[in-house]
Amino acid sequence: MSRRKKLFITGAAGLVGSALRRYLRDRYDFRLLFHRTIPETEPDDEIIVSDVANYENMVEACEGVDAVIHLGIAISGKGTPRTRYNQMIMETNIQGTYNVFEAARIHGVPKVVFASTNHVTGFYEQEGTRTGGDVMVRPDSMYGVSKAYGEALARHYHDAFGMSCYCLRIANFPNTDEVNREYETGKNRWLSSRDCSELVHCCLEAPHPQFGIFYAVSQGADLKWDLSNAKQLVGWEPQDRGSPSP
Amino acid sequence: MSRRKKLFITGAAGLVGSALRRYLRDRYDFRLLFHRTIPETEPDDEIIVSDVANYENMVEACEGVDAVIHLGIAISGKGTPRTRYNQMIMETNIQGTYNVFEAARIHGVPKVVFASTNHVTGFYEQEGTRTGGDVMVRPDSMYGVSKAYGEALARHYHDAFGMSCYCLRIANFPNTDEVNREYETGKNRWLSSRDCSELVHCCLEAPHPQFGIFYAVSQGADLKWDLSNAKQLVGWEPQDRGSPSP
Repeated sequence: MSRRKKLFITGAAGLVGSALRRYLRDRYDFRLLFHRTIPETEPDDEIIVSDVANYENMVEACEGVDAVIHLGIAISGKGTPRTRYNQMIMETNIQGTYNVFEAARIHGVPKVVFASTNHVTGFYEQEGTRTGGDVMVRPDSMYGVSKAYGEALARHYHDAFGMSCYCLRIANFPNTDEVNREYETGKNRWLSSRDCSELVHCCLEAPHPQFGIFYAVSQGADLKWDLSNAKQLVGWEPQDRGSPSP
Repeated sequence: MSRRKKLFITGAAGLVGSALRRYLRDRYDFRLLFHRTIPETEPDDEIIVSDVANYENMVEACEGVDAVIHLGIAISGKGTPRTRYNQMIMETNIQGTYNVFEAARIHGVPKVVFASTNHVTGFYEQEGTRTGGDVMVRPDSMYGVSKAYGEALARHYHDAFGMSCYCLRIANFPNTDEVNREYETGKNRWLSSRDCSELVHCCLEAPHPQFGIFYAVSQGADLKWDLSNAKQLVGWEPQDRGSPSP
């Protein structure tokens, strides 16, 4: 029996991180990064408490893992002023994402799965233009700009260092175990926990090295986003449905 | 006679900044940002000494100008360690570029011309693939990644706030008054000071609002880069020649 892969997961207390811990626990070992709040974990989980903005801690955290799942982002409250929120984005989404990729490179970690967002191409969506993972960015927010930075970084680490990098443009992620939601036909924005976890699993098990930018969304988003490159590169298709059947 | 436009130029002591001061002095008024070294200036020039990483100073510096020409970048010596240089890039090219765009937005400055680089798409060039301003980024260095960030930011400020933003992918810039250099036919990487200055002038005088990503290079780069979008959007074509005539 082959050794189970160990994943270093940043933002492990968040919505996506919690879903991955629930769905992928039977398949992988975890090293989990928590920022402040530490949720209930399992005895076998390795726990690290740090900000992703701490470079030395990220370098230490990437030692000996098989893949990094980088989910950590700045979270703002409703009343956070623009200047303050933008600074949080700079520290966490930009400096932190650089730290994580560079730490992975230093330790020769072959794969990084990076939580990006549909907001990287949000202005196409606002104009009603359907996109795939192969268009120039048009971020609709500073959050989207920071994720465009992460995608450019991922592309660089792939091209320059042969790292497999996957950027998952995750849209609406409620972190429930639901598998069906009602959306206007073709206009789904919802990703089920199961579809998300299987997509990450497919990226982790795909041939190496690869680079992919995938819209991470359950079925019924076909008017907005083309998911065919995820099927082609890593064999993933959503199984759950975010729109009523036609 | 209409009032002359006032330009806020960051990195004004650098190669490109020095060329612009020389070629555009008769057409525009200048507010010049110097980091440490202050070159000889003219009595009418407004002078500011600051790091672009200082947000408050950038906000102050953008008040009352008609356009920003953002040229400031981190300069590393030959022996600068990777970690240190990457941190300089983070502070100057990333935090600094955010500061400049945000400062321009706060004061309603309608145009920003941003010095980008061919290194944003360097891996296409390494593979021999010809590119224009309309392909996904493939940065060949952390410097290229930082400029990809700046381009994504520029796109956002254009789409979200109606700012005219031009990203000039400047390649080899020696800052002499030469107008001809020998390169292998079609493979020029050189931008003359005159072509550079006229391109900036064309961007400053073009209809508003626009967004453009242009390869900024003199004649003879046609095997590598498509310059047609600059002609179409702002009416610029290089007049000098970086390759022997066919």
